[in-house]
Amino acid sequence: MANAPGEIEALIALMARLPGLGPRSARRAVLHLLRKRSVVMEPLAQALVSVAATARDCRICGNISDHEVCPICAADKRATGVLCVVEDVSDLWAMERAGGFSGRYHVLGGTLSALDSIGPEALRIPHLVQRIGDEAITEVILALNSTVDGQTTAHYIAEALAPTGVQVSALAQGVPMGGELDYLDDGTISAALAARRRL
Amino acid sequence: MANAPGEIEALIALMARLPGLGPRSARRAVLHLLRKRSVVMEPLAQALVSVAATARDCRICGNISDHEVCPICAADKRATGVLCVVEDVSDLWAMERAGGFSGRYHVLGGTLSALDSIGPEALRIPHLVQRIGDEAITEVILALNSTVDGQTTAHYIAEALAPTGVQVSALAQGVPMGGELDYLDDGTISAALAARRRL
Ligand SMILES: [Zn+2]
Ligand SMILES: [Zn+2]
Repeated sequence: MANAPGEIEALIALMARLPGLGPRSARRAVLHLLRKRSVVMEPLAQALVSVAATARDCRICGNISDHEVCPICAADKRATGVLCVVEDVSDLWAMERAGGFSGRYHVLGGTLSALDSIGPEALRIPHLVQRIGDEAITEVILALNSTVDGQTTAHYIAEALAPTGVQVSALAQGVPMGGELDYLDDGTISAALAARRRL
Repeated sequence: MANAPGEIEALIALMARLPGLGPRSARRAVLHLLRKRSVVMEPLAQALVSVAATARDCRICGNISDHEVCPICAADKRATGVLCVVEDVSDLWAMERAGGFSGRYHVLGGTLSALDSIGPEALRIPHLVQRIGDEAITEVILALNSTVDGQTTAHYIAEALAPTGVQVSALAQGVPMGGELDYLDDGTISAALAARRRL
């Protein structure tokens, strides 16, 4: 990796930390940027600066947008009363791409993990319980990954929500074992949503 | 790709234009940035802004650095008298990684191509001819890709340099046919350099 000038080398090292880019492809990406400085590099730099300055976690659902309350939580057209619980913002995006869900979300930001000492508070589960009452929620759809951690978390949430009397459902078994939402095609997600089962 | 907020969507579209990143991996990369805003996104944004503002083509050799004259052209330690001609800055970096060359460079910025109407002027070949006299060059090493266009360009340059009496050599046939320098391991490049043949 050596022999590019220091500042460019530092940029390559930063790019290499992105998922999907290793040291070699990061170098090629930076070279591409250097060749297209005004057409590609400057717009990308400005977009990054702008998004880094404005992006924030929605204080209601945990989605990322450039507002304190994200467009989904702020949209009058979205149904109130139904919450879809997802592990990550990427899963929220995948649900939205798939279409078929018109309610609101709750982004956990991960799954329960004794190993990494991630407990219910870190996942905003108490906040979820509070939303059930505050927003008069009648159904919670657990759209968690079909992994061991995802299903453990789903069961924990179902139990935590039991006292509220809210109806809790989960995506149908259309989601393949070990599958992660973000890698599924839209049709599979839609079908699993339509056939969701009550827990 | 829809459903991320507009500004984030625009960032994903810009990232997707980088070599090695498609729309899907660009989205994952941007999500990674959004999750690590202060640790990864802000440093990357600042590095891009900084490099975009300072990067320029060396007025002597065509290398890219943050100076009008690049560190290689400015280094007293680098041998004068021997020029290595490469197609692209990525090839210059590959030569430097391989080691074994202590002279200076001339970056063409491409190869001759009737199809794309890239002629000798666009490749700074007249400037190369001028450097032979100005810098008292005794040998020119053509380190061009072993592609049809690369070899056509090598022959054109050898003929253009003939009147100057400078010795012209090319990397040895250690470079596989169709091979591009940037994809070769360092040992192959070093061996080809050591066994370069006079044209
Ligand atoms: Zn929200
Ligand atoms: Zn230079």
